Amino acid sequence: MTAVTTSSMLAVDRSDELTLLGLVGQLELVAFTRLAEDSALAPNLDQTLRLARFSAGAVARLERIFARITELGGSPQTEVARFAHVMDDFDARTPSSNWWERLLKAYVGYGVADDFCKAAAAGLDDATSSLVNEVLDGTSHADLVVAELAAAGADDPVLRARLALWGRRLVGEALGVVQCLVQGQPGLARLVSGGAGEPDGPLAQAASAAEDDAAAPAAAHLFGQLTAEHTHRMARLSLSS
Amino acid sequence: MTAVTTSSMLAVDRSDELTLLGLVGQLELVAFTRLAEDSALAPNLDQTLRLARFSAGAVARLERIFARITELGGSPQTEVARFAHVMDDFDARTPSSNWWERLLKAYVGYGVADDFCKAAAAGLDDATSSLVNEVLDGTSHADLVVAELAAAGADDPVLRARLALWGRRLVGEALGVVQCLVQGQPGLARLVSGGAGEPDGPLAQAASAAEDDAAAPAAAHLFGQLTAEHTHRMARLSLSS
Repeated sequence: MTAVTTSSMLAVDRSDELTLLGLVGQLELVAFTRLAEDSALAPNLDQTLRLARFSAGAVARLERIFARITELGGSPQTEVARFAHVMDDFDARTPSSNWWERLLKAYVGYGVADDFCKAAAAGLDDATSSLVNEVLDGTSHADLVVAELAAAGADDPVLRARLALWGRRLVGEALGVVQCLVQGQPGLARLVSGGAGEPDGPLAQAASAAEDDAAAPAAAHLFGQLTAEHTHRMARLSLSS
Repeated sequence: MTAVTTSSMLAVDRSDELTLLGLVGQLELVAFTRLAEDSALAPNLDQTLRLARFSAGAVARLERIFARITELGGSPQTEVARFAHVMDDFDARTPSSNWWERLLKAYVGYGVADDFCKAAAAGLDDATSSLVNEVLDGTSHADLVVAELAAAGADDPVLRARLALWGRRLVGEALGVVQCLVQGQPGLARLVSGGAGEPDGPLAQAASAAEDDAAAPAAAHLFGQLTAEHTHRMARLSLSS
């Protein structure tokens, strides 16, 4: 890649990198709000406090993303604002009807979004890509969800069956979010289709021509990856995906 | 006080101190949740982010209170749980109908509760009383509220008049919360009626005999103090109390 670097390509890369950081920042902001709501709704004080800490942790991770955006010469607010409503559709389409469904929704929904960001970060420079991975792995919220759902489902096959079904619905909707992101943000499409070195990679083409056959293998690869991670996540809960 | 210290009095003092720390902890937890909701409802990204930071800050302050409770041999969760619904009635009685009313509600409601805690902390040992004061002064949320309400009201005398009226309603309800606290928690009554050295002070008696004339001067002093602080707070907004 260094051999073909030109100033114009560098500019494209930098702006794609900022776009991804904006998405990660927005996801942390959404996580902060959602975890604070979870904290207020939690069935006992112990979970209230743990979720409050996770929520505050999301703000701390947001600050690290903001610092990196500033370091790269971008405006944190501009980059984050680009994704202001990124999870709104997902939320509206998947109203959870109880505490367990709510926990699973955050675990699956954020899980898919986080995996997408990690895939997009893979092609970036080490500093940004390590930061994105650290930030997205920085919550132990998943451990709480796994422990709570495992305990609740242990003697309740009906609950387990319902949650397995709920998980399948959630992952479908979450993959829909990813599809919108790839189609609506060419910068993200470029990143996931092979890193910053391929500004015209197949998924970038998919952004402007979603039906294009050339985009199919890259898209299939990405969605295959995200689905595999989801299966792994559901297996941790002993739920079939 | 040292001259009359006995092991039984020490036990009473320590438990009153823990009770107050529990209240401060619960207020920080309530502030965390409320500021996170404010953040989600804020009219622009700048305020969303500032409120998210204040919310996370409340969790950091909660941790300091928890550390002190543990240091004193108490259980943070037990002390906080004692005040689980402390602001519920206040919230239910004062539904805010717009963003400005919501901002003012937090400013006035928390303001009164914070002042009450500071008054109760005055009689405690330096370590706890400085901590309580630091924690309660630790948010610059008030600055945001003052700036926003001043800007909104600058050219809008109708809004200013409505907010002044709203402030009067809020302080009445907030003083009601304080009254319930003093009546329901003898430890707090002892603290505000003259510090840990006066376990049978007049406000402590008020806890068991609210109508007792002997309690009246101490209660009047406390409520006078809280009202004066409220007047000062409203003056910062150029609103009449």
